[in-house]
Amino acid sequence: MSDVRAAQRGPAPRGADSFLRMWRELLPVGREAGAAGYRRYAWSEADAACRAWFQGEAEARGFTYEVDRNGNQWAWLGNPADGDVVVTGSHLDSVPDGGAFDGPLGVVSAFAALDELRARGSALRRPVGIVNFGDEEGARFGLACVGSRLAAGQLTPEAARELRDADGVSLPKAMERAGYDPDAIGPDLERLSRIGAFVELHIEQGRALDLSGDPVGVASAIWPHGRWRFDFHGEANHAGTTRLEDRHDPMLTFANAVLAARKKARLAGALATFGKVAVEPNGVNAIPSLVRGWLDSRAADEETLAAVVEEIECAATERGHRDGVGVTVTRESFTPVVEFEHALRDHVAKLLGRPVPVLPTGAGHDAGILSASVPTAMLFVRNPTGVSHSPAEVAAEDDCLAGVTALADVLEGLACP
Amino acid sequence: MSDVRAAQRGPAPRGADSFLRMWRELLPVGREAGAAGYRRYAWSEADAACRAWFQGEAEARGFTYEVDRNGNQWAWLGNPADGDVVVTGSHLDSVPDGGAFDGPLGVVSAFAALDELRARGSALRRPVGIVNFGDEEGARFGLACVGSRLAAGQLTPEAARELRDADGVSLPKAMERAGYDPDAIGPDLERLSRIGAFVELHIEQGRALDLSGDPVGVASAIWPHGRWRFDFHGEANHAGTTRLEDRHDPMLTFANAVLAARKKARLAGALATFGKVAVEPNGVNAIPSLVRGWLDSRAADEETLAAVVEEIECAATERGHRDGVGVTVTRESFTPVVEFEHALRDHVAKLLGRPVPVLPTGAGHDAGILSASVPTAMLFVRNPTGVSHSPAEVAAEDDCLAGVTALADVLEGLACP
Repeated sequence: MSDVRAAQRGPAPRGADSFLRMWRELLPVGREAGAAGYRRYAWSEADAACRAWFQGEAEARGFTYEVDRNGNQWAWLGNPADGDVVVTGSHLDSVPDGGAFDGPLGVVSAFAALDELRARGSALRRPVGIVNFGDEEGARFGLACVGSRLAAGQLTPEAARELRDADGVSLPKAMERAGYDPDAIGPDLERLSRIGAFVELHIEQGRALDLSGDPVGVASAIWPHGRWRFDFHGEANHAGTTRLEDRHDPMLTFANAVLAARKKARLAGALATFGKVAVEPNGVNAIPSLVRGWLDSRAADEETLAAVVEEIECAATERGHRDGVGVTVTRESFTPVVEFEHALRDHVAKLLGRPVPVLPTGAGHDAGILSASVPTAMLFVRNPTGVSHSPAEVAAEDDCLAGVTALADVLEGLACP
Repeated sequence: MSDVRAAQRGPAPRGADSFLRMWRELLPVGREAGAAGYRRYAWSEADAACRAWFQGEAEARGFTYEVDRNGNQWAWLGNPADGDVVVTGSHLDSVPDGGAFDGPLGVVSAFAALDELRARGSALRRPVGIVNFGDEEGARFGLACVGSRLAAGQLTPEAARELRDADGVSLPKAMERAGYDPDAIGPDLERLSRIGAFVELHIEQGRALDLSGDPVGVASAIWPHGRWRFDFHGEANHAGTTRLEDRHDPMLTFANAVLAARKKARLAGALATFGKVAVEPNGVNAIPSLVRGWLDSRAADEETLAAVVEEIECAATERGHRDGVGVTVTRESFTPVVEFEHALRDHVAKLLGRPVPVLPTGAGHDAGILSASVPTAMLFVRNPTGVSHSPAEVAAEDDCLAGVTALADVLEGLACP
């Protein structure tokens, strides 16, 4: 249907060369001098710069560039209306002080893989698309995968419009300030129905590939996970004059919940983390009136996850009784277990031409959201530190290029059968 | 030397009437709609409004109004250059979401007590001053009693210029923006040397007067106290992918320190509180790289205080070894024990005309800072909740007026012997 040779302009860079060029160009965006890491938050200036980069790469190759109703960016090679499209891509936003690879590696590799196919002279028989999903990390509005959730109908426009950032700016206001139309957001099922396969490449967020000695692996499943807000209601008072026995100090109850969460997760083979805290009034000499802690928890199956969270809530409530502190728990988000479609997963693994590890992951991804609507697979690239959501996350250049080759092989196998 | 009748203009309000009028007028300042309490931070707009109120009250009475080199406000009745001045007053700033009484009760009562003396027709034989010390609470820059510390030479201008608020604004910049000259700050010992007695009236920050059934008491001593910053250095990582055994999670070490602080304080009969926390990056799905907790600790004597803080530090460091988390502890401030001068204390108690409780307090005050340079005493007014640094702190109207009468009696006894 489409010929990658005809659609691209200029000389044909090999995937490796173009990957390295694009990586260099994107690297400074959203990393301010003195900052500990990247701060590419949804609808920020840094986000706009990432989006401009995406549009530039799409247009430089003569791809059809498009922004959907939810602000996700697409670059098409061939006509997506023909259906059975092969889509690849990831996201460009970051967590607070995040690393360079989580998200951008998948988008840059997507462009580089198509450059590689062009250099190989591969003739595409299915339309191909590259996507940059908006607000994957949820760093600003507290909910991950907003762009793909809206498209897949897993987040209603009404609920999305209620999202607010730490400064009280609503999602619609943030979109509007960035030049997007917040009235347009909503499900985009026709677009998703045209996708025959979505393959997301991502840096591994653990050390499994490092331990097995493989540069690239394939995803089997995403653990169920969720976020719960724990509100510990105490009584503000003077830290220098209030007798210990007269206190209702919510910091004690919170501290106990942090330690309980670790213990319950360890016993269940699950994960539980309090990584975000807000304290009122947060004065050095004031017993807090309120401590808010956000629990992130994940497990291999939904029953285990539910049991762990319930145990943490019970421990917090029990300690709250002793401290004279009220505890309320609100589930802010929940993502069920995702089993990637076995047929596509096995096909992708076969296209890599050699046995590769097939791994579960605890991290959520746009691929997990889409998997409810679209056959979806993921490739992971080795991360020797296993560190993620930090500037210490890293993939060796050779492994990044192995990732580009693997993605090119998969796209070629899917689109040029 | 001065005659209060001659120096004041207009009709003579009784202390009670003028107290209630001033209290009503000051009450709305610095309390925004929807806020949990007062936010009268040093050099803020709310602070400026409080200062304008002070200047207005001073000038309406024909007192000589003056701002010293450190931004403390003074209102003089008589010529302070004559020496042996009797000074009263307190502060007008607040902790975050603080109550209405801590500070303002002492300043409003000071003006009202002089109105009362005028109504009594008392002839002052010593100059009298009213002071509003700047930045007593330290809510913005993390160090309490900045105005009195600078004046008494207990804080160097160099160290003061290094102070920064949570937004990175330095103290000099904040003073400049508020219209004050930060180059002028420094010791003001000649001014202090002219003060023969300083009497600060303050709401009690505990329940001792409530338990004894007295509206007013006299301070015996201020417990030694200090602030220590605990930095817990971990490693940022993804909360959904990092195995528990690979983590260096500083939130765990912090949580353990919070519980250890309570336990060590309880065993020693001391106070220890973590009321302020800062987390980096503070993302819901990110293991923190850094948790900062500020410890406020106080005890009846300095040996006990040092021992408690050392025990908390040891417990934190030990747990840090288990968590793979580095712990550094920085003493940000320390105020030794203050024994108020016994002669003035006993004189003040005698002037009240009846036996009153003589109480220690765990809270720091400008009176404590000044006591190193000046004979100093404090009066406390009953607080039936015992709550402080919160909108729940309260004194009954009758008790406030009893405080005005007590302060008037003391000033009369000191200045009109």
